[in-house]
Amino acid sequence: MHMKAKAAKADFAYLRIADTIEEQILNGTLEPGQKLPSIRTICREYGISQNTALSAYHTLEIKLLIESRPQSGYFVRFSKRRLPSLPAVTNPAAIAHDADNDRIVQAVYESLGEEGHLPLALGFPANGLLPVAKLNKSLAQAARSLNGSAVSYEKTEGNERLRQQIARWSFAMEANLSSSDIITTNGCLNAISYCLMAITKKGDTVAMESPVSFGMLQLAEVLGLKVLELPTDPQTGVDINALEDALRKGQINCCLFISNFSNPLGSCMPDEHKKQAVQLLTNYSIPLIENDINGDVYFGSKRAKSCKTYDEAGLVLWCGSVSKTLAPGYRVGWVAPGKFKAELNRMKRYHTISNASLTQAVIADFLETGRYEKHLRKLRQTLQANLHQYSTTIAEYFPEGTSASRPQGGFVLWVVLPEEIDTMLLYEKCLQAKIGFAPGRIFTLQNQYNNCLRLNYGLIWNDKLKNDLQYLGELISNVNLI
Amino acid sequence: MHMKAKAAKADFAYLRIADTIEEQILNGTLEPGQKLPSIRTICREYGISQNTALSAYHTLEIKLLIESRPQSGYFVRFSKRRLPSLPAVTNPAAIAHDADNDRIVQAVYESLGEEGHLPLALGFPANGLLPVAKLNKSLAQAARSLNGSAVSYEKTEGNERLRQQIARWSFAMEANLSSSDIITTNGCLNAISYCLMAITKKGDTVAMESPVSFGMLQLAEVLGLKVLELPTDPQTGVDINALEDALRKGQINCCLFISNFSNPLGSCMPDEHKKQAVQLLTNYSIPLIENDINGDVYFGSKRAKSCKTYDEAGLVLWCGSVSKTLAPGYRVGWVAPGKFKAELNRMKRYHTISNASLTQAVIADFLETGRYEKHLRKLRQTLQANLHQYSTTIAEYFPEGTSASRPQGGFVLWVVLPEEIDTMLLYEKCLQAKIGFAPGRIFTLQNQYNNCLRLNYGLIWNDKLKNDLQYLGELISNVNLI
Repeated sequence: MHMKAKAAKADFAYLRIADTIEEQILNGTLEPGQKLPSIRTICREYGISQNTALSAYHTLEIKLLIESRPQSGYFVRFSKRRLPSLPAVTNPAAIAHDADNDRIVQAVYESLGEEGHLPLALGFPANGLLPVAKLNKSLAQAARSLNGSAVSYEKTEGNERLRQQIARWSFAMEANLSSSDIITTNGCLNAISYCLMAITKKGDTVAMESPVSFGMLQLAEVLGLKVLELPTDPQTGVDINALEDALRKGQINCCLFISNFSNPLGSCMPDEHKKQAVQLLTNYSIPLIENDINGDVYFGSKRAKSCKTYDEAGLVLWCGSVSKTLAPGYRVGWVAPGKFKAELNRMKRYHTISNASLTQAVIADFLETGRYEKHLRKLRQTLQANLHQYSTTIAEYFPEGTSASRPQGGFVLWVVLPEEIDTMLLYEKCLQAKIGFAPGRIFTLQNQYNNCLRLNYGLIWNDKLKNDLQYLGELISNVNLI
Repeated sequence: MHMKAKAAKADFAYLRIADTIEEQILNGTLEPGQKLPSIRTICREYGISQNTALSAYHTLEIKLLIESRPQSGYFVRFSKRRLPSLPAVTNPAAIAHDADNDRIVQAVYESLGEEGHLPLALGFPANGLLPVAKLNKSLAQAARSLNGSAVSYEKTEGNERLRQQIARWSFAMEANLSSSDIITTNGCLNAISYCLMAITKKGDTVAMESPVSFGMLQLAEVLGLKVLELPTDPQTGVDINALEDALRKGQINCCLFISNFSNPLGSCMPDEHKKQAVQLLTNYSIPLIENDINGDVYFGSKRAKSCKTYDEAGLVLWCGSVSKTLAPGYRVGWVAPGKFKAELNRMKRYHTISNASLTQAVIADFLETGRYEKHLRKLRQTLQANLHQYSTTIAEYFPEGTSASRPQGGFVLWVVLPEEIDTMLLYEKCLQAKIGFAPGRIFTLQNQYNNCLRLNYGLIWNDKLKNDLQYLGELISNVNLI
C-alpha cells in the first residue's frame, strides 16, 4: 500500500515536471536548439530522484519536443518555425442549407466508410494504437461478474457501473455529473441521433462549426434538418459573435458543437468561450448538443472543460464515447441530456429498448481498474508526436502557401492548400496511388473548402507513412490540378 | 462420425413419431382419455427401438399431451374441451389514428418496462428458460476467435459469420436468403425502427394487426406515423379482405405484420394468406415490414413460412432477432430488407455507424455449433406445456364468458373477459396483489379491448405461478369492476 502510494506520487512528479518544461517550450521561454538543464541540475532544482528526472525527459522525447544528443545532453527540438502557418478563420455564408448533399460528395462519404480504405482518410485511430490485450482482460472479468445477467434486458438508462464511471470521469472537466444524469448509447453518433430526434423536428435548423464533421451532415440529411454553418477559428473554435448574431435573428433551433478538438478543424473552445456560449444559449433557451468525443485526447497538461461544465439550465446534452480512444467496434457511448432526460430515455426505449450490457460492462471494468487513464496517457503522447511529424513533413514537402491547423488534441489535421488546387480532383488521383485523405468539400453544404483536406494522424508513424505524406506533398506540388 | 450420424437419425425418428401422434391428438383422431399403443406395439409398428419409442412418449408427456398411469400405460391427456373458447375476429374501426397515446395508457406502457415488474405482464421469456451457461461457452469461443478485431468498426452490414448463419437458418422457412441480403441491427425493434425511417415519412399510415404490439404504437408515435388497425383473426391473423380494402382505397403507405405468432393475439397467417398478402402488396407496390421475431418458437412439427418466402418484388423487409429466444440483453437482431437494402444500410450507418461485433459473434457461434436448435427444441416443449397449463387454469378459474387465444407459438396469451370487466381498473387492483398482466387497452389507439388482457406464459411453471393465475381468476370473478 505504502509502496503503491509512493509510486503514484513519483508518477505524478515526473508528469508535473514534463508538463512545466513542455509549457516553456511551447510558449517560447525555451528556444529551439537550446540546451536543457542536465539531469543532475533538475534533480537538485526540483528535489527529485534521477529516475524521475529521466522519466520527465523521456516523456518529452516521446512527444518529439526535445532530443538527446550523445555526450552533449538534452536540447529543445520543437520549433514553431518548422510548422505550417495557421489557416484563417472560416467564413461560410450565414444561410441555413438543407442537408441534401450532392451525389458526388455522397459517393466520397460512402467510399471513406468502406472497409480496407486508406487510413489517412479516416477519423479514428489505427487498431495498433488500441490496448487490445488489456481490453480482453476486462472482457474476461466482465463476463465473470455479469454471470447470467448479460442475457437480460437492462434498464433503459444503461449499465449502472459504466454510468458511475462516466460520472466519476466527468469530474476531470468539473461537470460533476452523477450516474443518474447519464444514459448510455450505441456509440456517440447514436447519442447525437437520439438528441436530434428528441429536440428537433423536420425543417429545423441546427448550427454547427464550419467545416462540419461529415457524419453530422449525413445525420442532418436523414432527419430532414437544415444546417447553419458558423465561422470557426482553427484554434478557438466557433465564432461567438456569429453565434450571437444567429441567435438574435432567431435562425437556429439547436446547436451541435464539438467543443474540444473539433473534427476536422481541431479547434478547442477556450473556457471563456464555452461559458459565453452557454450563457447566450441560456438567454435564448436554445439547447446545445455537445459532442465531446475527443475531450480525453488532449495534448496539454489537463483535460479541457466542457460546455456542460457551465450548464446550469440543463440545456447542454453532453455526448461522448470510447470509440475514438479505446474500442470503436464496441459501440459504447453516452449522453448526459440535462433537462431532456425523459425525452432521451423515451427515444432510446422506443427505438431499441436497451443496449448490450456485455460491452458496457467491459468498458466499465476498464475504467474502474485505471487501465483507461494509463492507456490514454500513452495514446496522447503518441498522437502528439505524430502530429509533430505530420506538421513538419507538411511544412517541408507541401507547396508554398499551404497552412495547417494546430490541434491541441484529437486525431485529425486540417490542411489548406493554395487556392488553385481542387482536392476532389486530387482525391481521385491519390486513390490510384493508394494514398487517402478526406477532401474538404465533404465537410460543408456550401461551395467552399475545395482546396482543403483532412488527414488522420491516429496511425502508427513509420517510413511508409512518412513516404506517403511526402508523396502526397509532391503530387500536390507537381500536378496541375486546376 | 458413424456414431454421430446414427444418433442424429434416432433423434429424428423419435421426433417424427412424436409429431405424428401429436397431430392425431390435436385433430381428434386420438380422443381425450384414450389409451395409446404400448411401447412394444409402436416399436413393432414403426420399426424402432424401445429407447426411441420411450423418447417419443416422453416428449409428448413434457408437452402435457399424454400422461402415463402406473401399471396401465399411456393415455391422451389433452382435451380441447378443457380449453377456453376462441375469441372472435377483432373489429377495429377502419380509420387511421395518430399514434398519440393518451397519458394513462402511456403510464401503463412505462410501468410494464420497468425493472422488477411482475413477469406475467411482460412479453419475453424468463431468464430461467435461457441457456446462460452454454451462451457463456460461445462467449469464450467468440472472444478467442475475434482476437483483436472486436475493437474495430465492422462493416455496416454487420458480422459476416452471423449473417451467414441467419441466411442458413432462413432455409427452414424456404426464404433462401444469402448473407448479402441481411443487415444486423441492435435487436428487432431497432430493425423495425430503421425500416420505418427508411420507407415512411411523417404523417404516413402504417397498417398493423389489431390488437397491436404496444412497442409498435410507441415507435409510430415518435416517428409521427398514423396507424390503421386491421381486423385480425386470433388463429389466421390479419383479415386479407380488410387489407385488400385498405389497399384499394389507398389508405396505407406500408404494412407492419407479425406474421407468425403475433403479439398479443398469437395468430399465425396460413401459407395461403401470406402468399395472398404479398401478392396484393406487390400489386399496389406497398412494402411490408414483417416482424418474424417469434417464428422459431412454433409448437407444430416445423417452422412456419414467412411472407418473405413469397416475396419476389423485394417489398418485404423481414426482421428478426434472438431477443425472445436466447439473449434479450445481447441486442442482436437483423433485417433482410429486400430492395430497400441501400436505404437500410444508410439508416444504420448514419444513425450509429455499426453494431458491436462481440455479441454478434457470440450468437453466430451459438448458431454454428447447433446449440441454438437444441435450445429451441427444449424451449418449444416447455412453452407448449405452459400454454396448456395456462389454458386449462383459465378455463377452470376465470369467469364464464371468458375466451382465450390458442397460439401455435410464441409467448403470449390473449384473454377476452366478459364485457363488463374493465382491465385497466383490474390492473390497478392486481398491482396491489403483486400480480401483473398487460391490459388490452394499451394494444390499440381506439377505445376497445377494455375487457381484454395479455399474459406471458414464457415463465417457469410452478405452484406460485398457478396460484397467481387462480387468484387472478378469482379477482375477476368476484370483484365488481364495472
